Amino acid sequence: MKKIGVFTSGGDSPGMNACIRAVVRAAVYHGVEVYGIKRGYNGMINGEIFKMESSAVSNVIQRGGTILKSARSKEFLTRDGRQKAYDQLQKFGIEGLVAIGGDGTFTGANIFHEEFGIPTMGAPGTIDNDLYGTDFTIGYDTAVNTALEAIDKIRDTADSHERVFFVEVMGRDSGYIAIPCAIGGGAEIVMIPETETTLESVIDALKNGWSRSKTSFIIIVAEGDDAGNATTIAAKVQEALPKMDARVTILGHVQRGGAPTAADRMLASEIGIACVEGLLAGRTSEMAGIVNRELVYTPFIETITKQKLINPNFTRMVDILSV
Amino acid sequence: MKKIGVFTSGGDSPGMNACIRAVVRAAVYHGVEVYGIKRGYNGMINGEIFKMESSAVSNVIQRGGTILKSARSKEFLTRDGRQKAYDQLQKFGIEGLVAIGGDGTFTGANIFHEEFGIPTMGAPGTIDNDLYGTDFTIGYDTAVNTALEAIDKIRDTADSHERVFFVEVMGRDSGYIAIPCAIGGGAEIVMIPETETTLESVIDALKNGWSRSKTSFIIIVAEGDDAGNATTIAAKVQEALPKMDARVTILGHVQRGGAPTAADRMLASEIGIACVEGLLAGRTSEMAGIVNRELVYTPFIETITKQKLINPNFTRMVDILSV
Amino acid sequence: MKKIGVFTSGGDSPGMNACIRAVVRAAVYHGVEVYGIKRGYNGMINGEIFKMESSAVSNVIQRGGTILKSARSKEFLTRDGRQKAYDQLQKFGIEGLVAIGGDGTFTGANIFHEEFGIPTMGAPGTIDNDLYGTDFTIGYDTAVNTALEAIDKIRDTADSHERVFFVEVMGRDSGYIAIPCAIGGGAEIVMIPETETTLESVIDALKNGWSRSKTSFIIIVAEGDDAGNATTIAAKVQEALPKMDARVTILGHVQRGGAPTAADRMLASEIGIACVEGLLAGRTSEMAGIVNRELVYTPFIETITKQKLINPNFTRMVDILSV
Amino acid sequence: MKKIGVFTSGGDSPGMNACIRAVVRAAVYHGVEVYGIKRGYNGMINGEIFKMESSAVSNVIQRGGTILKSARSKEFLTRDGRQKAYDQLQKFGIEGLVAIGGDGTFTGANIFHEEFGIPTMGAPGTIDNDLYGTDFTIGYDTAVNTALEAIDKIRDTADSHERVFFVEVMGRDSGYIAIPCAIGGGAEIVMIPETETTLESVIDALKNGWSRSKTSFIIIVAEGDDAGNATTIAAKVQEALPKMDARVTILGHVQRGGAPTAADRMLASEIGIACVEGLLAGRTSEMAGIVNRELVYTPFIETITKQKLINPNFTRMVDILSV
Repeated sequence: MKKIGVFTSGGDSPGMNACIRAVVRAAVYHGVEVYGIKRGYNGMINGEIFKMESSAVSNVIQRGGTILKSARSKEFLTRDGRQKAYDQLQKFGIEGLVAIGGDGTFTGANIFHEEFGIPTMGAPGTIDNDLYGTDFTIGYDTAVNTALEAIDKIRDTADSHERVFFVEVMGRDSGYIAIPCAIGGGAEIVMIPETETTLESVIDALKNGWSRSKTSFIIIVAEGDDAGNATTIAAKVQEALPKMDARVTILGHVQRGGAPTAADRMLASEIGIACVEGLLAGRTSEMAGIVNRELVYTPFIETITKQKLINPNFTRMVDILSV
Repeated sequence: MKKIGVFTSGGDSPGMNACIRAVVRAAVYHGVEVYGIKRGYNGMINGEIFKMESSAVSNVIQRGGTILKSARSKEFLTRDGRQKAYDQLQKFGIEGLVAIGGDGTFTGANIFHEEFGIPTMGAPGTIDNDLYGTDFTIGYDTAVNTALEAIDKIRDTADSHERVFFVEVMGRDSGYIAIPCAIGGGAEIVMIPETETTLESVIDALKNGWSRSKTSFIIIVAEGDDAGNATTIAAKVQEALPKMDARVTILGHVQRGGAPTAADRMLASEIGIACVEGLLAGRTSEMAGIVNRELVYTPFIETITKQKLINPNFTRMVDILSV
Repeated sequence: MKKIGVFTSGGDSPGMNACIRAVVRAAVYHGVEVYGIKRGYNGMINGEIFKMESSAVSNVIQRGGTILKSARSKEFLTRDGRQKAYDQLQKFGIEGLVAIGGDGTFTGANIFHEEFGIPTMGAPGTIDNDLYGTDFTIGYDTAVNTALEAIDKIRDTADSHERVFFVEVMGRDSGYIAIPCAIGGGAEIVMIPETETTLESVIDALKNGWSRSKTSFIIIVAEGDDAGNATTIAAKVQEALPKMDARVTILGHVQRGGAPTAADRMLASEIGIACVEGLLAGRTSEMAGIVNRELVYTPFIETITKQKLINPNFTRMVDILSV
Repeated sequence: MKKIGVFTSGGDSPGMNACIRAVVRAAVYHGVEVYGIKRGYNGMINGEIFKMESSAVSNVIQRGGTILKSARSKEFLTRDGRQKAYDQLQKFGIEGLVAIGGDGTFTGANIFHEEFGIPTMGAPGTIDNDLYGTDFTIGYDTAVNTALEAIDKIRDTADSHERVFFVEVMGRDSGYIAIPCAIGGGAEIVMIPETETTLESVIDALKNGWSRSKTSFIIIVAEGDDAGNATTIAAKVQEALPKMDARVTILGHVQRGGAPTAADRMLASEIGIACVEGLLAGRTSEMAGIVNRELVYTPFIETITKQKLINPNFTRMVDILSV
């Protein structure tokens, strides 16, 4: 393999640039030419492809976002779109790909390999951490720390005013972000999709806290909680507890940006190298991940279909720590 | 004057603790006893009053929020409430007050002095910066920097996805927070209460940008803008530009918390000392402020009734810099 | 067991407060009384012991340092000192201890248990990460991120002036802090105690870089490197390369402070709870740690005598990534 | 004037990029072509000159350092060097310059204008804040906040261990950085070049503190203090107080980097625009500054020869606040 391409796809996450850098540098190190592909599968279809030297990734390891930009591509979902993408890769002589993204990205790469034989190795780039095959995804640690710093600030004002804050963090399908925010943010309650938290239990916890003269509360809500989003939940609790002085904060897209943490830079670097070395070793359609601090390659099909469960002990920790 | 009290009132702001610290230390320095009053006028009425030594404010200068807590008091709006407050102060022998807060706080202090003769000096503690009599209020610089850091993060993801972000910052009546966020955040458009920005001009700016192949935009909206809040504005623009990929972020209460910046700690310290020294010099019903780097005392009545206008040059700067 | 004590000992590390909080809350949760002991073994000897309620650890999870203070105790190294300590614990009825610290702390606890039968469970509180029995120590992740943020800033000025920066990070006996700083900071060279890096290889790397028109360099030096500290190394390299424009920065004690990261708060909380639950289950003289995301108890004797080796792949990563 | 050049010179400071951006955008806004000149006067001499479009400064406002790089030029000190520089400018048709830097930069520009008639407007880019003609220099606010964040971290460990920390901050000739670090960092003592602080007074202050059972101290030393640098001072105090547990931290070049604060971005933007508009209005050999929040142009000769004195009230504040 003499030429490979690298692209980012799906929602961006901090550390994607560190991963692109590792892919480029590992390719150069191993004497392989490397091409950047802009805007994910869209750019592949449109031929937004350019050669990257080692210096192209100087001074990017600390930057949030992705220098290759990202997009979701409807055209790549069609056979026609994938044919165009293949033709473009042929034009540049690209024989292998590194895809940095999540579920959707890997699903596309899987089909693409089956149809056109282009091998792809995947790097788990998403803040959600809900990908099977790696303990942590690239960007997750940064997103959690960003959310936590915001919660620290909210706590200042919650304490000063003796208020109840409902803070919504990202996590459509899982509580991976919500849990460390709750434990690390000293929250009293956490509401995540994986476990049912009834409004009654929230109301009870607040009443119970007040009776112990606890005056300010932080409730972390994962955006995908079954009881609704933070705004809905706060409104319902307010109805039951009219005297509660409540505020809602939705942390939103701030969680996607920012300089990656040390852990995310390490992870992104390790995985970026592993993707290139995997390709060169003849691997394809696998995601590189770190499990128990060891490099592991997991077939795309497993990362897509298998579920990574959250440690059930963590919700118990929230109960103990808010005693 | 041998005994003074200090309290925080209204919305909390970063630097209030630094100011409390300066009041306590200046009092000790000048041989005056100092009492902390909790929860603003509410605590004054209820006698939540305690003696503070120099060590009571150790290690608080860097903390957000207020160790004295804050609250809005309905009871103090009544003559009866103020009578109770006066009786409590008498009980402790408190002869003068330092009030850290905003308009409402100073209005109360003014009446209280007229009725009961208790002198009060005020420190401008609010993130909004819309108080006449000081170039900057305590907490304003921190709030702006907090918002700006969030906007830096949003820019990462805006750039990566070529999106339009509507970011709502605090400022019910003024664009003081919005303006430096727009200039410092490299925003393309800023919408503030002081100047009318029509939806048409926003739509034109976006179209114009796209025609110059500018692909990501940040629009800063002060919460009090006449065109509505960020959510409403985004929805209306979306209607006119259905292809726009827009996101709304409301920074919210995060802006109130966090460790104060150097400038806010300096300002809070200088003003805290000035309040105590003003009281000792026989002053009352004035706010201590810094204007052109000089200490200035302004009668409460002026801080309440006069308006501090935003530099009109700043909106022109946004236009120039987004060219 | 009805009464336990908790203390911090040795060098402080971020997350110690989060761990104290977890110990206190877990004790309260399990119906056990908990006492804080100030200044480590010194305070135990001097009876600086006080009862802690759940509220004693409110709002401390995000604070650096240790609210219980820390110290090294010479007196506890003597049998007499330990006798005094035992007598004090008897006076308060304390039947078990949680010690947050490192090697020295655990050695003391081991002897103390052998002599007086007081069971102690240990939490690994040190930024150095060189304790066997846990993947990460409490404070390590924060220290690395603090150092990395400083290196990001140094890179700004290194790039602007085309300079060579020798940055010394903590790590007397190991490169645990240096390695992620080098990989995450985009450094060209890393010098750690575990592997020999000759001055010749540093000089060659610089010459080689200049020949590829690389103009700024960051060299991370662990304070315990065999080639000397950063100042010495820089001086020697300067001699060989007189034209080099070099600067030395010693990050120093800044690395010990600051708000703990999310990972450190999680780790500290999990381990704090595990120490209490370990004591209640009849354990003693063991350190609670997290290995491969599972709770593991390791006898003190093993944490003291066994070595935790750094992943040798990491130095190879520095070479690949600086290509 | 149809073509102008912009360059950075001398020590880099945070906000230089924001200023370059403002110069470029203001030029484009006013229909003037703008050229970037790399490595200060060196690059001018060597013809490292390139055209900059508006997009050349996208996404740089938040970055530390300078995208144009900086250097000190010996050759420009000679008539020959300046002749070469002039010839290069002629080649590109550059009729005016914006110089971002300090004293030395402006001295060079002054001579250059006298000899060759090339008008130059100056922007005060230095963290030291010791330039006459502006209340604050670009980068000063950021440097102070960076130092202060480090001091906050040091305080954590100082408190935990009851130590005395000598922290050296930048400021060869002035205490501008040291003063807000001392006030904002809650330091007990500050040592600056402008005022004499004897070692005796330091020793007395420490003794006095211990007698009041104050156990941890922070002493801020400006690098240019007449009593020596932090290391020397600490050694001398240690001799007099052998029981003191002291540590020295030299913050160093970390203070030069990092994302600029809101205030520095505002200042850099305002001044960058003012330099371009000054040039277009026929001005030359003046520095644009902000004094009392108003734009002021000051002849280079005054910025070089006049001294900006530090507010003497500030050292009194340190005394009051450490009571």
